[in-house]
Amino acid sequence: MQIRVINPNTTASMTEKIGEAAQQIAAPGTRVVATNPRSGPASIESHFDEAISAVGVLEEVRAGELEQADAYIIACFGDPGLLAARELTRAPVIGIAEAAFHMATLISTRFSIVTTLGRTGIIAEHLLQSYGFAHHCRRVRAAEIPVLDLEDGGNAALDRIIEECLRAKAEDNIGAIVLGCGGMADLREQISREVGLPIVEGVTAAMKLAESLVSLGLGTSKHGDLAFPRPKAFSGQFEYLSGPGR
Amino acid sequence: MQIRVINPNTTASMTEKIGEAAQQIAAPGTRVVATNPRSGPASIESHFDEAISAVGVLEEVRAGELEQADAYIIACFGDPGLLAARELTRAPVIGIAEAAFHMATLISTRFSIVTTLGRTGIIAEHLLQSYGFAHHCRRVRAAEIPVLDLEDGGNAALDRIIEECLRAKAEDNIGAIVLGCGGMADLREQISREVGLPIVEGVTAAMKLAESLVSLGLGTSKHGDLAFPRPKAFSGQFEYLSGPGR
Amino acid sequence: MQIRVINPNTTASMTEKIGEAAQQIAAPGTRVVATNPRSGPASIESHFDEAISAVGVLEEVRAGELEQADAYIIACFGDPGLLAARELTRAPVIGIAEAAFHMATLISTRFSIVTTLGRTGIIAEHLLQSYGFAHHCRRVRAAEIPVLDLEDGGNAALDRIIEECLRAKAEDNIGAIVLGCGGMADLREQISREVGLPIVEGVTAAMKLAESLVSLGLGTSKHGDLAFPRPKAFSGQFEYLSGPGR
Amino acid sequence: MQIRVINPNTTASMTEKIGEAAQQIAAPGTRVVATNPRSGPASIESHFDEAISAVGVLEEVRAGELEQADAYIIACFGDPGLLAARELTRAPVIGIAEAAFHMATLISTRFSIVTTLGRTGIIAEHLLQSYGFAHHCRRVRAAEIPVLDLEDGGNAALDRIIEECLRAKAEDNIGAIVLGCGGMADLREQISREVGLPIVEGVTAAMKLAESLVSLGLGTSKHGDLAFPRPKAFSGQFEYLSGPGR
Amino acid sequence: MQIRVINPNTTASMTEKIGEAAQQIAAPGTRVVATNPRSGPASIESHFDEAISAVGVLEEVRAGELEQADAYIIACFGDPGLLAARELTRAPVIGIAEAAFHMATLISTRFSIVTTLGRTGIIAEHLLQSYGFAHHCRRVRAAEIPVLDLEDGGNAALDRIIEECLRAKAEDNIGAIVLGCGGMADLREQISREVGLPIVEGVTAAMKLAESLVSLGLGTSKHGDLAFPRPKAFSGQFEYLSGPGR
Amino acid sequence: MQIRVINPNTTASMTEKIGEAAQQIAAPGTRVVATNPRSGPASIESHFDEAISAVGVLEEVRAGELEQADAYIIACFGDPGLLAARELTRAPVIGIAEAAFHMATLISTRFSIVTTLGRTGIIAEHLLQSYGFAHHCRRVRAAEIPVLDLEDGGNAALDRIIEECLRAKAEDNIGAIVLGCGGMADLREQISREVGLPIVEGVTAAMKLAESLVSLGLGTSKHGDLAFPRPKAFSGQFEYLSGPGR
Repeated sequence: MQIRVINPNTTASMTEKIGEAAQQIAAPGTRVVATNPRSGPASIESHFDEAISAVGVLEEVRAGELEQADAYIIACFGDPGLLAARELTRAPVIGIAEAAFHMATLISTRFSIVTTLGRTGIIAEHLLQSYGFAHHCRRVRAAEIPVLDLEDGGNAALDRIIEECLRAKAEDNIGAIVLGCGGMADLREQISREVGLPIVEGVTAAMKLAESLVSLGLGTSKHGDLAFPRPKAFSGQFEYLSGPGR
Repeated sequence: MQIRVINPNTTASMTEKIGEAAQQIAAPGTRVVATNPRSGPASIESHFDEAISAVGVLEEVRAGELEQADAYIIACFGDPGLLAARELTRAPVIGIAEAAFHMATLISTRFSIVTTLGRTGIIAEHLLQSYGFAHHCRRVRAAEIPVLDLEDGGNAALDRIIEECLRAKAEDNIGAIVLGCGGMADLREQISREVGLPIVEGVTAAMKLAESLVSLGLGTSKHGDLAFPRPKAFSGQFEYLSGPGR
Repeated sequence: MQIRVINPNTTASMTEKIGEAAQQIAAPGTRVVATNPRSGPASIESHFDEAISAVGVLEEVRAGELEQADAYIIACFGDPGLLAARELTRAPVIGIAEAAFHMATLISTRFSIVTTLGRTGIIAEHLLQSYGFAHHCRRVRAAEIPVLDLEDGGNAALDRIIEECLRAKAEDNIGAIVLGCGGMADLREQISREVGLPIVEGVTAAMKLAESLVSLGLGTSKHGDLAFPRPKAFSGQFEYLSGPGR
Repeated sequence: MQIRVINPNTTASMTEKIGEAAQQIAAPGTRVVATNPRSGPASIESHFDEAISAVGVLEEVRAGELEQADAYIIACFGDPGLLAARELTRAPVIGIAEAAFHMATLISTRFSIVTTLGRTGIIAEHLLQSYGFAHHCRRVRAAEIPVLDLEDGGNAALDRIIEECLRAKAEDNIGAIVLGCGGMADLREQISREVGLPIVEGVTAAMKLAESLVSLGLGTSKHGDLAFPRPKAFSGQFEYLSGPGR
Repeated sequence: MQIRVINPNTTASMTEKIGEAAQQIAAPGTRVVATNPRSGPASIESHFDEAISAVGVLEEVRAGELEQADAYIIACFGDPGLLAARELTRAPVIGIAEAAFHMATLISTRFSIVTTLGRTGIIAEHLLQSYGFAHHCRRVRAAEIPVLDLEDGGNAALDRIIEECLRAKAEDNIGAIVLGCGGMADLREQISREVGLPIVEGVTAAMKLAESLVSLGLGTSKHGDLAFPRPKAFSGQFEYLSGPGR
Repeated sequence: MQIRVINPNTTASMTEKIGEAAQQIAAPGTRVVATNPRSGPASIESHFDEAISAVGVLEEVRAGELEQADAYIIACFGDPGLLAARELTRAPVIGIAEAAFHMATLISTRFSIVTTLGRTGIIAEHLLQSYGFAHHCRRVRAAEIPVLDLEDGGNAALDRIIEECLRAKAEDNIGAIVLGCGGMADLREQISREVGLPIVEGVTAAMKLAESLVSLGLGTSKHGDLAFPRPKAFSGQFEYLSGPGR
């Protein structure tokens, strides 16, 4: 089974880190192809970054279709382009935010989220509402660290995340914590040890959900509103998307 | 006052039609600049089309900022790129779906939507939920006509829309109907006459909301999660977005 | 265009103040007729005050119909008599609470309300739920000042409101503040300057929504549950309402 | 124990009928005082009728306070003036719509409502949402009979109600039916026999809830937002409400 | 009228206390039969305890059917086995949590709950959501006392409960408090006096609701999903439940 | 990895069938132990059956703990005893209803449920609401076949299920169907072929979720409200549950 793990931003070191975390958790026989778009933002910290990154996500799904990928993971906590990506393939497509939420509700009655920047909290709130998990989440917390600080090799970012997780544990009346950034994929074990609470991380959670769906023979429904897009003309830099359809 | 009305698809005839409808409803002193992106889909009928179109919408907002536009309208019923567009400007940005929903709740207790293709109904459902209007909408109906059929000059599409509106009036226990496509901007008066019910159309509704906010001195809040995006590096076809600031 | 701005309480100085704020924001060609009922409470600070005031609101709509008013505004933050008023006219009727909520959601993702007395907070909560904005409002705050303190000419009330707005800005994770009393109609600019956040005030917001609907040719739907009331007999002090029709 | 059953409309025959139904169900030792306001509409079939009737309801509560009533019932299915009435007394105040909803949820998982006119359905919908019972109610049905047809002595109205109840039983997947009009207080047994389903009627339900609260020593909380209204000046026809307080 | 008050745990002193509180509030002519299962947990402080206790609750309903009980009360704040119990009888079955919630909403706009152990708070949250009262409850508070501490005769538990109630009164913006444990049935008057707020206690509330339904001739609907269970084979320790069914 | 698949009813043929379906979908290295309680109902078709069956489920979890099971599946669509079971173990515990709902939302925007008897529809509705999936499910449909008809070897039951699935496909505007009974575990492939829509079956879905959580090192949180139950005395037939600890 080939799972294409798409880091929606263009920071190669993060892609590599995410890929390693994904491969490590993968079942025997699952091959992870970790990629990032050639075009897009170096990190995703706003609705704007997210909207731009969605184009790259869709490119990567199109590329994956040529390689007959069995499933896709969108490895950014805002799940950018998720429904659009699902339209492009019969394979399952999993966002890491949804993956983490699903898993967290299976092991606790209530959870909190610890994300990077406060301004992205609203993205998590919107996803929680849309997916149906609003009342399972007690609080969205931010460590107030820029995403790329997770790449700088030092411990400052990790320390801040652990600090916020400990606060969540002490104050939020929860059973689990969801890590709110794909860049934390390599930190879940360490954070879990330090915090003493189940820590749900989205990349790893999504890997197992993707494998699960493939094993079940389930993929994105092509009946109804996730059917392949109607073929049509595209202009300008998107002209290459034109066509009679897939 | 200059209002930039952005048709997110690239069909110039639709842009023109939308621009005319917008200018017609505009207050004296309001100048409508109707534009569409150079790059993007000819029509928007899926999440995929919508995700691609968001890039063009954001381009048009950036262009508008250079021209010091006073407000922006996103003239596609899925409100593509809405929150991202808001991050790029202090001016108000209004989506035509939200505009129509707001106006419909002010003149009726319950409304139905008549849109083009059934597959886009889910987009309307998601917006209704996110904006808070889910329980004001009785039903999302589709005339099952492709968007560009609205451009072909004949009456078949119009007839189908009127037929569906009449069904909504007869069956849905509603006080108003929301037209679910920017391409219907020129049809509201005719449909209203034929159907005998208040017909809310998004482009015209958004025009008045945009003018209203400008008059009130209100624009997108730059405090909190709609602040300008943090400057950062972009790669590839989006490299031009890189920069030290907004 | 004539817009009848109804102050539901009987304090003439407040009516005047509200009328001035409304006229100031009005479009050229819009004439504001600011009125208050002859009968009713001097201020509205409870469900009881609100229920009594609704009668006066309805009187004023009936009076407006004789003068062929083009739209109505109910200038009390509880929107007293709103749906009843809508039944009496084909013109639009806008409550200032709903107007402020609608506008606030167009420029921010989340807002707080700063109202006068804590005991009226529940009225705002009920309106938020009914209109669909419950999850857009982070917190209902009270400055704990009686309504008529806003009329006494001093700065104490204003200072308290600004203080509470600053707390909301600092603590509530919001992008905008809604002022929760018609008596604050003249304060929005000053508060906005001091607080440094978009301040949405209902009278001015409602004015623009009313003008917008009139421009769009949209009025209260007479199809369905907002149709004119069935004519019938009324007794006692309300006998004058009897009749064969509207 | 004295329970004041307030028929918010001015139709004496309905007041009498409601009073009889209430007294019949009353516990030994409970005295029913059935009243209606001197002023108000002959029937309540719109938001307008309801708003006017609220004044009479409040008058009747004030009158009841002089007679030291132990509890109040508002015997119109829209619960007009409910929260305002609660502010005026330490005694419990029960609306017949809420009473019926509460009781229906105790004996079934889902219920439907059969009311008089379709246009009042929205009032029931709003109450269901506000009280928290929206997802317990499958459907609001109307027999499309004017309220006063229930007073004309013939069987046509009853037949229509039974017909609609039988449809609800057959189609709605429910366990109980709520009768949606105070004027049906005398019909519950007959309808129940004909329909073969638990029929919940509001006047009788409210009687038992009122007695229950009195027995429990529970009355309207005077701590917080249902405290007595602040005393203040009232003008015109409502001047008699002015005062230093209750 | 015979009301069977079922204490789902096996602590006889608590059953006695609950029975006394129930009889004390009962109407003349109502006979309380307070029982507890022979088998089950000594106290209920977890989902596990609750699931086991449900068997005993159902035994007690079956026993009550033989004695032709007119109504049943499940006297544990998690309402264990409520819907299952309803399936077994035409009589009304009332849980004390639902009873308290219903009554609290009739005398206040918002309430808080004070329960025993924090870990049972989630049970209350789930019930609030399922019954429809989630937005009427401001906060679920725990005194952090084990249930059986309420039986030890000292005042420590009572003091802790009063302390928590006073905090709720001061901080929660509420009008009433719901006591979250059947073991507090004898404390409501004392707590009410000390706290100065309406205190709603479930056993007493349920008694009045049960009497009310019986008086109204209303019992659990046997039409639809609360019909008697289909008869079938049971094995092992539950073999005695087998049969052709009633 | 050992996964204990608990059929909550006592019908051995169904346990076997479920066990086979589970083993078939299991990853290499996963050993399925399919069991059913010795005590309990032969099928689960009511709240009553469910409540009784919960005891057996808990017995089986306790038995599994002695055998150091790595995860548990509760293979009845009402997820009986789910939260109680979670309290008894650090391992993950998955209900088949929740499993199916989670998976269905990952491959479609909206789904319908096809269950056995109409009377169990309410159980599904309650679970959908509690888990957060109420707005993802368009409709709960019943084939109106008793559970054990699925065991009789003929095709009548299967035909009815397929017929209802085809109706759901044609009428419900959905992308996937959830099978609403553990006894359908062996039918998903055949139904899927006949219906031409993704068919989500709970036993198989739960298997993959259980394996996923174990691989992720995630188990039921012991911090907060799913901690092991406090040890206490149990009486009668449940005396064996007494003890100083878990």
